[in-house]
Amino acid sequence: MTPRFERAAVIGLGLIGGSVARDLASRGTRVAAYDRDAQQLDQAVRDGVVTDVLDESLSAVASIDPQAIALPVDAAIEMLRRVSSLLSGARLITDVGSTKASLQREVEALRLTANFVGSHPMAGDHRSGWSASRGGLFEGAPVYLCRASGTTDDAMRLAEALWSDLGARTIAMDAREHDAQLAWTSHLPHMIATAIANALARQSLWRDDLGRGGKEMTRIAGSSPEMWTAIAVDNAQAIDGALAAFEEEVGRMRAALARSDAEDLRGRFSAARAWFEHQENAYAEGRRPLHLA
Amino acid sequence: MTPRFERAAVIGLGLIGGSVARDLASRGTRVAAYDRDAQQLDQAVRDGVVTDVLDESLSAVASIDPQAIALPVDAAIEMLRRVSSLLSGARLITDVGSTKASLQREVEALRLTANFVGSHPMAGDHRSGWSASRGGLFEGAPVYLCRASGTTDDAMRLAEALWSDLGARTIAMDAREHDAQLAWTSHLPHMIATAIANALARQSLWRDDLGRGGKEMTRIAGSSPEMWTAIAVDNAQAIDGALAAFEEEVGRMRAALARSDAEDLRGRFSAARAWFEHQENAYAEGRRPLHLA
Repeated sequence: MTPRFERAAVIGLGLIGGSVARDLASRGTRVAAYDRDAQQLDQAVRDGVVTDVLDESLSAVASIDPQAIALPVDAAIEMLRRVSSLLSGARLITDVGSTKASLQREVEALRLTANFVGSHPMAGDHRSGWSASRGGLFEGAPVYLCRASGTTDDAMRLAEALWSDLGARTIAMDAREHDAQLAWTSHLPHMIATAIANALARQSLWRDDLGRGGKEMTRIAGSSPEMWTAIAVDNAQAIDGALAAFEEEVGRMRAALARSDAEDLRGRFSAARAWFEHQENAYAEGRRPLHLA
Repeated sequence: MTPRFERAAVIGLGLIGGSVARDLASRGTRVAAYDRDAQQLDQAVRDGVVTDVLDESLSAVASIDPQAIALPVDAAIEMLRRVSSLLSGARLITDVGSTKASLQREVEALRLTANFVGSHPMAGDHRSGWSASRGGLFEGAPVYLCRASGTTDDAMRLAEALWSDLGARTIAMDAREHDAQLAWTSHLPHMIATAIANALARQSLWRDDLGRGGKEMTRIAGSSPEMWTAIAVDNAQAIDGALAAFEEEVGRMRAALARSDAEDLRGRFSAARAWFEHQENAYAEGRRPLHLA
């Protein structure tokens, strides 16, 4: 079978970029790659995934002429400027960052490319780097796709095809809406896991002391501080809003505890279980859940 | 091999009691059981785990004369009074509740039995009932053992042997110390998971919208409201203290977000990862972690 892209470039071989590279290579795409960590890049070549090595200038990207470029880096805008000036043949340029609005604003302001589509695969892990990457990471994962004002329909369709090929479920969403929602669904849990870890550390209590539930709740506290600092600063206002609403819920529970109000507490635990079971049922029935009024 | 207990009684065939019954039966112990849900009890008989069915009076327990009794019920003290008046031959009576101090106070006040040891197996699940129970649930699980003032050394050794037989790792701990620690390591995560679920429900955001981390963080929101109401009320003060300390951590993160203070945020994410990795290292090295000063 002819691969959808004969050649692709992947800039940054971390968990996400590395897994994209593995999946593309296993589907017959010839992968060129750059990573600031030369050892990771070498390992990716030795692992038979990366065929062409790019240096920091990315200038070789012009001669390789890839058809798709993934930019899974904090400095995505820098890389994007560099590669877009070097490229004519790329039908698709995408990033894989966790926030989408600020990058898109820069893309639009700079009129960098009509072939740019922002991607956010929800396939994170607390582990990072090439060693954490693996084939099949995106099987069943949601991938948010955000088109810029100048993005062509072709580029959007190609982004959908790229991620569908990798087994993901694509969801088109406005970049600002994406960031507002992810503040709740991804960034809020992360901030909370961090706060739990640090509160327990002050008590000299460790992950080994936790039950299964507590261990699960703090797994993502082991994630990359660099990546999460960038996300938190980029989406600070929305995250703060989600934390404020969460604290209101905590406050309601603390008030019920102070009153030893079993009825109130039971109501909150029951509402949480209804939310959970609604979801479980929705999974089972293969449809989106309705809003619990 | 002769089983450690020829006969045992299990009062309440939920996740924990049911799993105890399964493990005992598979090791050759003849199991008598009671459950307020007659269907669950019938199913446990059909599944070949329970041999003798007890009615609500538990009076038949006298003729069965079990050597060990597990009381995995909210109404443990009621059951304990009833069985202790009926029994002469039991060498061990234990409960499996998540809080230990209040039951122990009652046991001591009533001088119910010298053979009572409080047990708390950390092997919970958001699912409950006989259908959720399974053999091997306690393999590798920590089980806290709390002796009352009148508990004999023999009973304590027998409790350790019972749980060790089932693959658990026993940890002897003062009942009040247990409740103070579990407020942090078990009850705090549960309250937080509940608050996350209810905050997301108010936003019409569902578990399906979450990434893997968020899904893990809200699994225990699906737990039994009845069980958790009892735990929360019983240990309200300690749980509130843990929530207050947790909120201080959240407050520090919100302050950093408001200032867009990347350095401060990075420090908090890094501290959380250090806590996480310290633990991962401690696991690998097979020893308890040191306190991060």
